[in-house]
Amino acid sequence: MPRQVDHRERRETIARALWRVVEQRGVLHLSMREVAQEAGISLGQLQHYFASREAMLSFAMDFMSEQTGLRVGQSLAKLGDRPHPRDVLRITLKEMLPLHDDARATSRMSAAFVLEALHNENIHAQARDGMVQGRTAVEQLVRQAIADGYIGADRDPVAETDLLLALTGFTTLLELDVIGPEAVLAALDQHLDRLFSEGGQRAV
Amino acid sequence: MPRQVDHRERRETIARALWRVVEQRGVLHLSMREVAQEAGISLGQLQHYFASREAMLSFAMDFMSEQTGLRVGQSLAKLGDRPHPRDVLRITLKEMLPLHDDARATSRMSAAFVLEALHNENIHAQARDGMVQGRTAVEQLVRQAIADGYIGADRDPVAETDLLLALTGFTTLLELDVIGPEAVLAALDQHLDRLFSEGGQRAV
Repeated sequence: MPRQVDHRERRETIARALWRVVEQRGVLHLSMREVAQEAGISLGQLQHYFASREAMLSFAMDFMSEQTGLRVGQSLAKLGDRPHPRDVLRITLKEMLPLHDDARATSRMSAAFVLEALHNENIHAQARDGMVQGRTAVEQLVRQAIADGYIGADRDPVAETDLLLALTGFTTLLELDVIGPEAVLAALDQHLDRLFSEGGQRAV
Repeated sequence: MPRQVDHRERRETIARALWRVVEQRGVLHLSMREVAQEAGISLGQLQHYFASREAMLSFAMDFMSEQTGLRVGQSLAKLGDRPHPRDVLRITLKEMLPLHDDARATSRMSAAFVLEALHNENIHAQARDGMVQGRTAVEQLVRQAIADGYIGADRDPVAETDLLLALTGFTTLLELDVIGPEAVLAALDQHLDRLFSEGGQRAV
């Protein structure tokens, strides 16, 4: 079905144009007109693929999660068959922070979506669902690591999961050049070391 | 100098109107026209007080920091003469999160400023300065707490400071209703308990 593929490809091309608009010019420029211009198509053509600004945003958000998932998956694949849960968490958190170009683009998109979500119920529901899903995956990993003795049994998996996700707050510190990538990784490693070393003392 | 006072008051009234626009309608509506309308004055009158959108944003950002500082100061005053550093940190971090109406308004303004900062050098410099100042204050507090034996001497004050500031990442989890205020406070308390209890074991 070549036309289906074309349709999907064209929508992805538009989503990438949308990311570039947000990353390079800012969320204030996030209109269908600006995205069409960035994608090199007419507004009419854009409207053929997305009936509304919201439909365009919604697709771009799903596509972004998919791309982030692929990046995480590629990094995890390098860890082999039975990766240490500390490494899995480290890779997952790293890809959520603006530490390289692709992650910076998706991180800025996320921030734009969150602001949009505050005033749009559908975007709010979609952004919430995505984050709840991510949170559930991290909590499962933490619970499994406790069960396997990698993390101390006295740790509360809910609070530990929430603390790990809260570390996405490094984004603002990085974007404002308050601290650099090395400091972020050092602090992240401190947090993970502490989470895991106390389990390590108990385990085996 | 009553005219000076009027001028300041009018600028604060405009800044508050700007916060309401951002909080209630979103950053996309952050134009001088919308703020003038919200403040109940003409665009010409607004331009009498602020020559540009940037000047208006810049003042609103400073005024916001001032108001947050006042809120923190009022809460700290209740702790008495020699507050425990854990309580000082807890109050400071709590006021940076959208846990009540005033803090929610300033938190949304902060998020809007950060996005604006990505594409505006002056706003970037101002936002960065504010955050560097806040970071320095937290690091001083952490270093003092280590010196006083409240926090373990083996803790790295730089990494601990960065981890504390990163916890502002709870903002997104709260704004998207992924977790509620109780869960945020429980996780925050876990983090602070751990930071301080290990010092407690060593101190005295």
